[in-house]
This record gives sequence, C-alpha cells and structure tokens, in this order.
Amino acid sequence: MTDRDRGEARTGGRASGPVLFWLTPSDRVESTSEGLLLYPGEILSRHLFRSLRAGVGERFCFVDPDRPERRFLGRVMKDAPPEISLEELAMETPSPRRTFDLAVALLKGEGWEDLIEPAAILGVRRLVPLLADRSQLRWSSDVLAKKRERFTAKVREASQLAGRADRMEISEPVSLGELLLKLPSEGSLLFCDTAGHVEPAGTVLGRLGSAPAVAAIGPEGGWSERERELVEEFGHKGGRLHRISLGPLILPGRLAPVVVASLLSQEGEREEHQKGEGSS
Amino acid sequence: MTDRDRGEARTGGRASGPVLFWLTPSDRVESTSEGLLLYPGEILSRHLFRSLRAGVGERFCFVDPDRPERRFLGRVMKDAPPEISLEELAMETPSPRRTFDLAVALLKGEGWEDLIEPAAILGVRRLVPLLADRSQLRWSSDVLAKKRERFTAKVREASQLAGRADRMEISEPVSLGELLLKLPSEGSLLFCDTAGHVEPAGTVLGRLGSAPAVAAIGPEGGWSERERELVEEFGHKGGRLHRISLGPLILPGRLAPVVVASLLSQEGEREEHQKGEGSS
Repeated sequence: MTDRDRGEARTGGRASGPVLFWLTPSDRVESTSEGLLLYPGEILSRHLFRSLRAGVGERFCFVDPDRPERRFLGRVMKDAPPEISLEELAMETPSPRRTFDLAVALLKGEGWEDLIEPAAILGVRRLVPLLADRSQLRWSSDVLAKKRERFTAKVREASQLAGRADRMEISEPVSLGELLLKLPSEGSLLFCDTAGHVEPAGTVLGRLGSAPAVAAIGPEGGWSERERELVEEFGHKGGRLHRISLGPLILPGRLAPVVVASLLSQEGEREEHQKGEGSS
Repeated sequence: MTDRDRGEARTGGRASGPVLFWLTPSDRVESTSEGLLLYPGEILSRHLFRSLRAGVGERFCFVDPDRPERRFLGRVMKDAPPEISLEELAMETPSPRRTFDLAVALLKGEGWEDLIEPAAILGVRRLVPLLADRSQLRWSSDVLAKKRERFTAKVREASQLAGRADRMEISEPVSLGELLLKLPSEGSLLFCDTAGHVEPAGTVLGRLGSAPAVAAIGPEGGWSERERELVEEFGHKGGRLHRISLGPLILPGRLAPVVVASLLSQEGEREEHQKGEGSS
C-alpha cells in the first residue's frame, strides 16, 4: 500500500471528513475465517452510509480509542446490512509524544467548552476544569455530569477529524490545591502567571525534557494570592515548578490555553525529531 | 509610580476592558503650558464615559498606533466636555520581538475573519489573505474593501484588550506566487505542509534566528502540486525556505494558523530572554 493509497483510504477519497473512525461498544467486530469483520452500530452506520454515502469497495480507517495502538483499514463489503472487512495496519503515525495535561480555570459562557476541540486536536492527554478562587463560574460534579455527553461527543468528533486515536480525558472539576495534591511526583507544573518570577514559556519548554507536564492556566482575573502561595509551597516541598509567562501582551482566557497546548505539542515534536537525528 | 499603580491605570482599576486605548485622528492632542491635553473624539468619548463610565481622576493608558513607541498615561480632568491630561510613560513593555507575517489561505465561512483577533493578539505583523489554488473562496480587492472597516475595528479591539501598541496590517489578497515575489531577501519562508521533506515546526524555529519570517498556511484541501513546485523553485533560487510540519495530527484550517502564530510569538520570547541572560 502506497502513501497515496493510505491517504485516500483515510478519508475515503474525500477532501474532508474523519480520517479515523472511532469504534464504540455498539460496533461489533467478529473474527471469522475470512478475517476480521466489522458490523457497525447505528451511529457509525449513519455516519458512513447516510452522511458520507459510502459505497461498496470504499475504504476507511478505524480504531478503538481504548486500544489506540491498533488501527485498522476497513473496506465496505456490503452496505445493507453493513459489513466491513478489517485489516490491521502497521503503525506509522504514533500519537503525540509528550504527555501533557491542561488545567484551565472555568471561563465565562461557552469559553471552556470551546477549548475541548483544540485541546483534543493538539494532543492534550487530560483537560481539567479548574475551580480557581477568582473563577466567575463554578461547576459541581453534577453540572459536569449533565454536560458530559456533549463533551464526549466533541472529543470524539475532533479526534476523528484530526486522526487522533486515543481519547482525551476530561476530569472532574478540581481546585488548584487538589490539582497539586494529585500531581504525579515525576510531573512538572507549568504555572502560567503574569506576575512574580516568571520565565518565557519557550525558554522553559526547551529544557523540560519528556517528563509529563501539567500546565495550569488561571481565570481572566488572575490567580489569587492564596493560590500563588500554594504553588510557592509546592515548589518549596520539592515539586517541579516552572512559572511561565506568555509574553507582554495580555491573552484572553480562551486563547491562552490554546497557545500553551500549541507549544507543548510542538515542543514534543522537536524532541522526537532530535532524538531521531541523534540515533541515525 | 509603582507597578501596582501602573497596573491599575492600565485598566482604570477594572478587571476587564482595554489596557491600552488607541488614539485615532478624531482624538485631538494639544500641547499646553500645563502639558499635553487630550480631547477625545466621539468614539473614544463614548467608550470611556458611556461604556466604562470613567470618572474624574481615573487613569487610562493611551497610544497612537502609528507611533507605538510612545505611550501615555492619561488622567481624566473633566468629563463634560471631556479633557484628559497626558503624561508620557517610560517604556517598559516592548512590542512582540520577532517580526513575522502570517499568510493564510482563505477559509470557509467566517473562518478567515476569526483569525484576525488571535493574530493581532499574538503579535503578527501582517496577516495576508492567500488565494491558494485549492481555496474554496476567492476575495477580490473589492470584496476585501467592503470588509476592511470591520477588519480594522477587530484589529483595534483585540489590540486594545491585549495591550498591543502597533497596528497589525491586513494586506491585499495575493497568490502564493505573488507572496514569494514580494518576500524580502533576508526573510524566511515557513511553508507549512503535510507532504514531502518537512521538519517539525519546533525544530525549525529553534534555529531560525531573529530574521523576519513569513509563515504560509494552505487551504483545507492542501497545496497544489503547482504551488509546491513554486516553493521548490524559490528554494533553488536561494530563498530561505523551511518546510515545516505541525505534527502527525491533522489540524483544521482555523487552528493551524493559531498554532504557528503561538510558536513564532513564544519563540521570539525565548530568544530575547536568552540574549538578556547572556548580556547580564
């Protein structure tokens, strides 16, 4: 299979649309003497055969987001009832390399929800709703539970279009104190701030290494003194703390997380490439 | 004046709102024996005294975006008719450092227009509407002329909120060929592509130096072969060409330019910081 074939298969030869379909528990995969067969459930069937009007012989890529390391090339064998043969693909596009979480203070209106799409596309492992002292909005676990279904759909849609195989997690809302308590010991905290001893984000990322990182982005009114003290204390107790600044201009709350995710995703790329060069 | 005073002056003590007001030709500045006096025109008056309900004694920062190197602290002396005394500020927040332009293929719907705000905030010097071979939309100069007033207002609003003093330019629509012809000889072309010999954006930016750069971002259908050949030829003729990739995931057309602008703006920060460390 050439790159061109693969490219066409990924989009079913179309200019837009998902490059990777996520399988859900309602899609049935059976191992037969002819190999793996996929019997798509209602949602996937509708997507493939009604929205995209897929025909017999057309090919699409599939993944189970709970087992993102295995991807499949599917070929439509029948359309009614739908039957798709699956062939496992040799992996060539690894998932984004650096593991990083983004903890973002709740934003007014739909601001926080609008971050889900870029965060999923930019490879964020976990998006954390942060209840900052100055957040103008509070979400309880109940409030989040009601939004959960819509959020999950947004993650799936964005990932399918971008070709992301693994599922970005959206965690329960936490305060900054709770976030610090749960930080794994090898993880770095990138604390975005405008005041105090901050370094430019670009400088810090260059020496961050490949350890997992959590970037914390405060509310539009900024962090409270209490929160700054919590972070100070975290650093004093041996936590890996980097206070970063995103430059002299003031970024609106919905743009700052996208900038941070852009930097973290692309810095991961840089490291991977340098390693590759070193070993060749 | 302490940092805190300055911070309060920038926002008139308010949590949100412009941190820097742009003066326009309808705002009159007079040099008097008492110093500089500003008589705000209709738009600025409305903004200050109706929207923000500024009172006598309140302070705000002002700049003429055509002379961004001079900033002023203004103090409201009278509100009807409005009179504001100006005092020139010693500069402490330079404009974003690396000069970079963003040439972005037209996007469906409001996609291109939605880039104006983040581009202005992230310090793009010039935003170029690119008429790519596969752009699904074409703008003539006439079409742009009709949008111009709205675009100018978007640039002003975004800049005032972010505290940007200089005006991002939005150029006439050009093809990729025209863009290459107009590129200054010392400038680098960052050609974002998914195919061919591309390097991760992070790697390239790390060795780009501080020379001006133009990043070109293609349409959702990708560059045409003709466009790739034009770029190839540009490189062969000695142009500074970097073909960059934004990673294995497929970014939607409205996100890719924001990622590139994020990297270019923050990489500028990194260089500046390293220089600062070296010279201290």
